[in-house]
Amino acid sequence: MQSGRSVEIGGMRFGGGAPVRVESMLKTPLQDLDGCISELGVLKKSGCELARAAFPDDALSAHLKRLVAASDVPIMADIHFNHRYALSAIDCGVGSIRINPGNMTDRAGIASVISAAAANNVVIRIGSNGGSLNKRQLEASGGDRPMALVLAVEEQLRVMTDAGFGNVIISAKSSSVPETVRANFILSKRHSYPLHIGITEAGGGISGAVKSAAGLGILLAQGIGDTMRVSLTGDSATEVAIAYDILRSLGLRRRGINLISCPCCGRRRVDVGSLVERVKAMLPENPPDGISIAVMGCEVNGPREAASADLGIAGTGAGFVLFKKGKAVASGKIEEMERILAPQLAQITGWPR
Amino acid sequence: MQSGRSVEIGGMRFGGGAPVRVESMLKTPLQDLDGCISELGVLKKSGCELARAAFPDDALSAHLKRLVAASDVPIMADIHFNHRYALSAIDCGVGSIRINPGNMTDRAGIASVISAAAANNVVIRIGSNGGSLNKRQLEASGGDRPMALVLAVEEQLRVMTDAGFGNVIISAKSSSVPETVRANFILSKRHSYPLHIGITEAGGGISGAVKSAAGLGILLAQGIGDTMRVSLTGDSATEVAIAYDILRSLGLRRRGINLISCPCCGRRRVDVGSLVERVKAMLPENPPDGISIAVMGCEVNGPREAASADLGIAGTGAGFVLFKKGKAVASGKIEEMERILAPQLAQITGWPR
Repeated sequence: MQSGRSVEIGGMRFGGGAPVRVESMLKTPLQDLDGCISELGVLKKSGCELARAAFPDDALSAHLKRLVAASDVPIMADIHFNHRYALSAIDCGVGSIRINPGNMTDRAGIASVISAAAANNVVIRIGSNGGSLNKRQLEASGGDRPMALVLAVEEQLRVMTDAGFGNVIISAKSSSVPETVRANFILSKRHSYPLHIGITEAGGGISGAVKSAAGLGILLAQGIGDTMRVSLTGDSATEVAIAYDILRSLGLRRRGINLISCPCCGRRRVDVGSLVERVKAMLPENPPDGISIAVMGCEVNGPREAASADLGIAGTGAGFVLFKKGKAVASGKIEEMERILAPQLAQITGWPR
Repeated sequence: MQSGRSVEIGGMRFGGGAPVRVESMLKTPLQDLDGCISELGVLKKSGCELARAAFPDDALSAHLKRLVAASDVPIMADIHFNHRYALSAIDCGVGSIRINPGNMTDRAGIASVISAAAANNVVIRIGSNGGSLNKRQLEASGGDRPMALVLAVEEQLRVMTDAGFGNVIISAKSSSVPETVRANFILSKRHSYPLHIGITEAGGGISGAVKSAAGLGILLAQGIGDTMRVSLTGDSATEVAIAYDILRSLGLRRRGINLISCPCCGRRRVDVGSLVERVKAMLPENPPDGISIAVMGCEVNGPREAASADLGIAGTGAGFVLFKKGKAVASGKIEEMERILAPQLAQITGWPR
């Protein structure tokens, strides 16, 4: 958001004030090309804007080439150790690669990768990772891990800028939220390259989502981060959905519907959880952006809490009241909810169901 | 954390540098006393440190009294509109009440509540809610909703301080993360009373957890917030678990085990998700605090990423390697994981299984 520079991958701008981009990484190994293509289809639908694919073996270059040709989502090839794989990925037509020049020992090889990237307008993401810091890097920062992450990024960045290459995205990731936050804060002050943010190895399920949301929320609230990946032990589309949940909750991007529901207390008049499920079932798979629907258990907080929502439902003793921008427009028994809600939903969203 | 003052409820300190407290609210109506007692038992086990209970009817005072007597978790009675219920709750022995003096019209009645609270060392939580702002309050702030939340809190606070009562916790909540963050930021600068933080109507499931984590994470990272509730459409123990997930990810409190697992990419050698489940199954219900276990899919990032973990497992072509503080201590086939892991787990945690 705040970074001055921007880069373009597959016609999409990253940084320089563009919306914060949402990335994921293919969980299917490239060996399984059909699986990768099908995963990319799901990712496209979920709103993924850049998909990273591990490219661990040159023998898979035919698969990578076909994947790039088949995909609606721009691909970033993730390469370690061997610069030849990076050259090969660029040959396959990827719009971006992720490398760590620090783990490629062949200096001339790295130079050839940078030349090929420049010639093909390929973006290079470089970056450090808490798990990959070596002894020398940790000692250079006096054991200050966030600063070691920053210095490791800058070491890689120098390789790029010394070669006159500036088409880069930078990143500093760790599985520790405080470490990641501090490293990115420093990077954002020192550099204007687009910043990829993420918490690595966040885990799975709700805990992983919570850790990612806390860490990325802290950064995004300060305007830090141009593109993000939520790294979860789980499927890639869930990573994307959670990234949008984070962005939506901060008011940075709105994708789909903002469903507000009360936490339920002893005052509730209806079973809010099941009502939410019934409302969800009425929504189309790809709802338009930026609509809010509130489901409230009672009439104490219901009407006013739901006032800012496009549609609000509040339980009463007798059934429910339907609000539109805070004004009661209909009421009925709980059993009639779908019948009464459907035309109102259609009106505000323009979709029939 | 940063608030200078502190209050005590049930012998537990809130604010003034005490650990950030974790609250929840009973989802069972007080009518169902046995249900409430059983829910409180689950909450106690989950680590809940203060449980709010809606007290909507004086006829339930016998139930409230028995609940307070039976509960290991301090109770906060949540009262609206009628000051007599607040008096009654204090009579029942609750250590704290949550009221909004703004919705109690009887001035003398409010004064009597404050006197009773003072006489019984009862903490009063006051606070504003985005859904309860009235026209006058919104106009007073020129339509600036966060500032309207702040002014609404201060209106209530004046009622307390004018009566010489300072045993209060304050709160400003909204279903909007940016609104809640800004209101609490201003409150934390202006006042030193313990601050209760939460995002209201966050919704349910992962989205609700993500919204809460983003909002509360932003506040907690700035040292704002002395006690928190994650408000979810879901069971109360889940609210508590997520609150601890947020606190743990920020390094503010450690409860239970920090399970780190990699997000899995095409490089993975083992099914990390199922491995995580198998490790989880080996952990006791109430593990000791502050232990970290890493489960990694491959040997590229595995060993180093797992270096800071107390125990780390990384998949290899042949099976897995077990690390202890970064040093390989054992290896084996995936089928042998439980047998090899068990004694190592026992060693670092002191629990047999």
